Amino acid sequence: MLAEIHKKLDERYQDMVDIRRYLHQYPEVSFKEYKTAQYIADFYEELGIPYQTKVGGNGVIATLEGGKPGKTVALRADFDALPIQDEKDVPYKSKVEGVMHACGHDGHTATLLTLAKTMQEHQDELPGTIVFLHQHAEEYAPGGAKPIVDSGAIDHVDAVFGTHLWATTPLGVLETSKDVFMAGADRFQITIQGQGGHGAYPHETKDAIVIGSQVVSELQQVVSRRIDPLETAVLTIGVFEAGTTFNVIADKSKLVGTVRYLNADLQDKIISEMEKIIKGVCVANDASYDFNYEKGYPPLVNHSDDAELILKAGKKIEDIHTSQEVVPVMGGEDFAYYTLAKPGAYFFTGAAKEGSVYPHHHPKFDIDERALPIAAKTLIQAYFDYQEKR
Amino acid sequence: MLAEIHKKLDERYQDMVDIRRYLHQYPEVSFKEYKTAQYIADFYEELGIPYQTKVGGNGVIATLEGGKPGKTVALRADFDALPIQDEKDVPYKSKVEGVMHACGHDGHTATLLTLAKTMQEHQDELPGTIVFLHQHAEEYAPGGAKPIVDSGAIDHVDAVFGTHLWATTPLGVLETSKDVFMAGADRFQITIQGQGGHGAYPHETKDAIVIGSQVVSELQQVVSRRIDPLETAVLTIGVFEAGTTFNVIADKSKLVGTVRYLNADLQDKIISEMEKIIKGVCVANDASYDFNYEKGYPPLVNHSDDAELILKAGKKIEDIHTSQEVVPVMGGEDFAYYTLAKPGAYFFTGAAKEGSVYPHHHPKFDIDERALPIAAKTLIQAYFDYQEKR
Amino acid sequence: MLAEIHKKLDERYQDMVDIRRYLHQYPEVSFKEYKTAQYIADFYEELGIPYQTKVGGNGVIATLEGGKPGKTVALRADFDALPIQDEKDVPYKSKVEGVMHACGHDGHTATLLTLAKTMQEHQDELPGTIVFLHQHAEEYAPGGAKPIVDSGAIDHVDAVFGTHLWATTPLGVLETSKDVFMAGADRFQITIQGQGGHGAYPHETKDAIVIGSQVVSELQQVVSRRIDPLETAVLTIGVFEAGTTFNVIADKSKLVGTVRYLNADLQDKIISEMEKIIKGVCVANDASYDFNYEKGYPPLVNHSDDAELILKAGKKIEDIHTSQEVVPVMGGEDFAYYTLAKPGAYFFTGAAKEGSVYPHHHPKFDIDERALPIAAKTLIQAYFDYQEKR
Amino acid sequence: MLAEIHKKLDERYQDMVDIRRYLHQYPEVSFKEYKTAQYIADFYEELGIPYQTKVGGNGVIATLEGGKPGKTVALRADFDALPIQDEKDVPYKSKVEGVMHACGHDGHTATLLTLAKTMQEHQDELPGTIVFLHQHAEEYAPGGAKPIVDSGAIDHVDAVFGTHLWATTPLGVLETSKDVFMAGADRFQITIQGQGGHGAYPHETKDAIVIGSQVVSELQQVVSRRIDPLETAVLTIGVFEAGTTFNVIADKSKLVGTVRYLNADLQDKIISEMEKIIKGVCVANDASYDFNYEKGYPPLVNHSDDAELILKAGKKIEDIHTSQEVVPVMGGEDFAYYTLAKPGAYFFTGAAKEGSVYPHHHPKFDIDERALPIAAKTLIQAYFDYQEKR
Repeated sequence: MLAEIHKKLDERYQDMVDIRRYLHQYPEVSFKEYKTAQYIADFYEELGIPYQTKVGGNGVIATLEGGKPGKTVALRADFDALPIQDEKDVPYKSKVEGVMHACGHDGHTATLLTLAKTMQEHQDELPGTIVFLHQHAEEYAPGGAKPIVDSGAIDHVDAVFGTHLWATTPLGVLETSKDVFMAGADRFQITIQGQGGHGAYPHETKDAIVIGSQVVSELQQVVSRRIDPLETAVLTIGVFEAGTTFNVIADKSKLVGTVRYLNADLQDKIISEMEKIIKGVCVANDASYDFNYEKGYPPLVNHSDDAELILKAGKKIEDIHTSQEVVPVMGGEDFAYYTLAKPGAYFFTGAAKEGSVYPHHHPKFDIDERALPIAAKTLIQAYFDYQEKR
Repeated sequence: MLAEIHKKLDERYQDMVDIRRYLHQYPEVSFKEYKTAQYIADFYEELGIPYQTKVGGNGVIATLEGGKPGKTVALRADFDALPIQDEKDVPYKSKVEGVMHACGHDGHTATLLTLAKTMQEHQDELPGTIVFLHQHAEEYAPGGAKPIVDSGAIDHVDAVFGTHLWATTPLGVLETSKDVFMAGADRFQITIQGQGGHGAYPHETKDAIVIGSQVVSELQQVVSRRIDPLETAVLTIGVFEAGTTFNVIADKSKLVGTVRYLNADLQDKIISEMEKIIKGVCVANDASYDFNYEKGYPPLVNHSDDAELILKAGKKIEDIHTSQEVVPVMGGEDFAYYTLAKPGAYFFTGAAKEGSVYPHHHPKFDIDERALPIAAKTLIQAYFDYQEKR
Repeated sequence: MLAEIHKKLDERYQDMVDIRRYLHQYPEVSFKEYKTAQYIADFYEELGIPYQTKVGGNGVIATLEGGKPGKTVALRADFDALPIQDEKDVPYKSKVEGVMHACGHDGHTATLLTLAKTMQEHQDELPGTIVFLHQHAEEYAPGGAKPIVDSGAIDHVDAVFGTHLWATTPLGVLETSKDVFMAGADRFQITIQGQGGHGAYPHETKDAIVIGSQVVSELQQVVSRRIDPLETAVLTIGVFEAGTTFNVIADKSKLVGTVRYLNADLQDKIISEMEKIIKGVCVANDASYDFNYEKGYPPLVNHSDDAELILKAGKKIEDIHTSQEVVPVMGGEDFAYYTLAKPGAYFFTGAAKEGSVYPHHHPKFDIDERALPIAAKTLIQAYFDYQEKR
Repeated sequence: MLAEIHKKLDERYQDMVDIRRYLHQYPEVSFKEYKTAQYIADFYEELGIPYQTKVGGNGVIATLEGGKPGKTVALRADFDALPIQDEKDVPYKSKVEGVMHACGHDGHTATLLTLAKTMQEHQDELPGTIVFLHQHAEEYAPGGAKPIVDSGAIDHVDAVFGTHLWATTPLGVLETSKDVFMAGADRFQITIQGQGGHGAYPHETKDAIVIGSQVVSELQQVVSRRIDPLETAVLTIGVFEAGTTFNVIADKSKLVGTVRYLNADLQDKIISEMEKIIKGVCVANDASYDFNYEKGYPPLVNHSDDAELILKAGKKIEDIHTSQEVVPVMGGEDFAYYTLAKPGAYFFTGAAKEGSVYPHHHPKFDIDERALPIAAKTLIQAYFDYQEKR
């Protein structure tokens, strides 16, 4: 059956491309993906596969119950886009000003829809049940995965698999990890409130630039001194904004940044160490502060045996020449919530567009569409292999 | 004669106010004071006092040769305005969008013009020669004073006096110093060029926010460790700008600030110490920098005996109840070039507007116009006293 | 045969204790272990097992050729002591002032000697060749392992195994890692040369305490910003010494510290980043420096399959209830040179002395001597298992 | 009469030298100057001039009442030595191990004693009363001046004058200031209590070296940002001591330093800003601290007219070719307590020893003894001039 499925997926390459390109032209940002959700629902409507909409927000879940007994396995594709202006020069360029599928979720969706159509044709002989999990809002915390999990929509599922078309990994390469695969990624903003004044009279002020600079310098210690060296953590301040003119001492400084880590247990430790440092610097300067820490997605930890299953699945796909373990990627992904709730694994499907490789979220981001059938084949291979897992 | 002059100045209070308010409604920014210069020239034209225009730029110098022998003394008034939006609610509010006499130079001009008209009436009995020095562009370095001095226009002058209507000093108070009276005031901009990148991969970047913060912290040592503690210096960074978003490491940071000092000899030392620190921090971080230091006006140093003369002159004016020495003011003033070239002194004429005191350069800045005749009386008193100075 | 060997080792527990306690009373520091080496040589002399002395320094290597064909496997025990005063109150306390077996190398030696005696009794039926590798100078870089390897003494060996009696791991527990097991550990000394002077005249000096403090603060960035967050590195300054009295500015500051890392490739990066920072701070302060970095032992990386073999061997020993993988230990160990040159693995044999656990190098350090036969059993098990390895 | 006094003082040059050299050989440290006090008392005893001993400690005060009416003026000489080993190679080298007159107080005493003897010969014609104020313990806070003032011993005095033989000012030069002449000089010790541990496990510790370095860096702001730039302040850390060995994280760091200032009002501000910074850094690091600030002598502020009197007196002395105002000296001097309590002034008498100039407190410190009669002449000139002051 799998050979036939592979063949069909190859034949439906152009369908996948068409769907992907259509979605690419009409991107919608996170939590506003109304038309995209409708497009997906319509697709299942037309196929006659039962589906639910508005799952945990704009999520759409279709369920294909096979004719043979087996496990229930969800295959997930996210479908939101980003507030980025498309700068590519291609016919399928975004038609929405300032919004772009700069992360490949259009491809994920095209892959999963085409796979659904294909698998429906094999429904009778299919063991188990495939859950086509179309998730909204991956790009913007708190994301769509958590409310979907919280809604109970995957309570009956045995495992969840998913893939990301990866623009910096070559075509034909599959990558995953048997442990933590993607990082916890949080955002914070620190506002230091000092006291402004004339640039020539510092003693009458509390210089928010000097204070903010100290905060930056001392925060280096969170990683250098306060986290177990065997753990992985990053604390970056991406924005420092303070002051309006050269001869006036700034009353306020704003620091905005991100924290990454691979072990979820570090999160609280990092927050409390940051707060300790900010507070101390403010005590030293008689200043006050506002520390707003937004917890993002937790680290995405694959289940070891399911990642192993993916690696082996990859080796069975003709178009995949390399199926390998890699070190964790420091970006975040709310697929993390699925593997916290259920068995499963996430992996990257190499999709680098030769001669034009731009990273995810870049205004010229694009993928090699030949990766779409590869992603579909790997997902369905994983599905079948999971049925046989003891 | 002085009693009569005083009387006339009091009688011409409304003239002064009219001139000041007219100029207040038509302010022009530094180096663009074409109409104001014309207004001044027209005034002298009408009086028939000989004058020169375009002195060192937009400067206007009128000369009233007295009927009796004596010294040549220049009295200086500046006449440029500032790029500030007038936010006062008064009938004489600026009629020019975004431009405002927020420093009182309109009042300086009204004072000097009315004094000129008055003194012309006493020309025959006047000992010496009065030079009415109307200077453009005090607000914006390199200023108007330097080109006027460089033009040779005051070569024949024996001394220069000038006053600033001072909005934070009460009416009836005269302030000056026998030594340095106003600070050297410079502006600098430091641009740190690091290397940007993904917030989760600091080791592939040169974090311009961390580097900039180090620069801020280490620059504290210029004052704390590298300047003779017996000297006065201030180094303030008024602006710190870097980065665009929380999860991207900034490639560049911009620091803009000011340096103040009372001893002109410190300037070069401060510049070289700053450069040493910036360079060192960049070496430590493998980054590069651009250090743009704009020398402003030198410290304004009064001639001791001329300041003494001013203090005594103040005591002779009925409207002045307090004539006192004060510690230096940390602001800059290009009158400094006159006392570098010639004897003379600068002083403040108290002009605080009771119930509505805003500092110089504030959008609601205003003065108590009763200070105008006081300024005129003090200047002409100083002129007469200087004639008798041995 | 192994059952019989185990039985003999248990019977010879008192022999092991006697040897260990004898050596404990006569410790010798690294590179000066002349009598200990002689003691070991005498032991083999008496047994009639051929041996070499002065291998790579004070090393002693004995070789027991089995009666059956097989591989040549070295079992390593180090035998140097530390310059620490023994503060234990036991009959076998060190008799040498200021020198102590505070790391258990006495026990390693007793274990290996007793094992040699035992195995000699099975020489005929023994497959392969056992190399008893008694190494000097583990405690003091550059150590004894490197010269032994360089001498060619293990060129003919197929694999090397070794164990450390570990005072903070419970009896009956075996610990190892399939990858890096112990850290690279280096030592550095930074001397900042500023310029001293009177405490009230900082501008005439280059304050070595301020400079040194900057170096400490900025070195935090080596770990926080310059090393791949997925890697493990530690940079600690353990000593800061500067100045003699409160009112004199110090001309010199001395910083002494250690660097640890798990990936040998980091070493050069860390050194160059440190030097960059030190140099930059000195440029910023017009100071000079001396940076003396002593490379210690590289990270000890076990061969994955040999560590697997050890873990399995542990599970075969009755006295071992737990045989487990652990995260790397940040201390250094020159066994690293053996696994760089040959297959093999290193492991810890739990030896915590209940009720009296002191860390290695502590003046009250001691071990539970019941760990000695366990260590011997595990080593010989590994030897036999290695014979069967394909 | 003054001419005759000058002549006698010149004739008694050898007496002065003898006394000075005797004292130089038998120095006593602050608060232990028992024999020196006895020597002084014996001198007055022999002359028959009435005196008091044990004034405010070891102080000796002799009183010479003149035959004519006039004011009571105290002339002060201090007489303690320092805990420094004399390294000069001269016949009059200190005979006391580790103790030395390294600040010239021996010369001060010789000057005053010889002046007393001389003035006694003119007692009948002397207007007013001379108080010979021999003070102990100038070198060690809280000093001898304060208890002498507190004892009431100078309550009846109209003014106090004193001089310091100054080893870095040329012979024939007199220096003083009309305002603050010497600085307030305090001592502090900061002990940071962190938590020690293994150098490879920073996250289990509170690194006292990192914390101490932050304290040093941030304390720079006391001068750079928190003190009025028009004021003078210095904060120096002279000692930084922490840690014992390279691979152990220090649990404690000790910073010892000095604070100098010219305006007594700054003292409390500086202390509170220091404490704020130390506390803040400790909050940031969860560490604790001990901050021990020992207030030393206040700034020595001369009375303007009395300093003027001294400057004019200097111009009347033949041996003085230069009598000048100088900027304040940043060292401390407990003469400060006298001018807080009474009119008066302090000045330096140039005593540089040509070809062998070592600063005060140097083991090779010495003075040009020809300065002794100059000091005596200036003091008595000031006494006479003060009698005529209105």
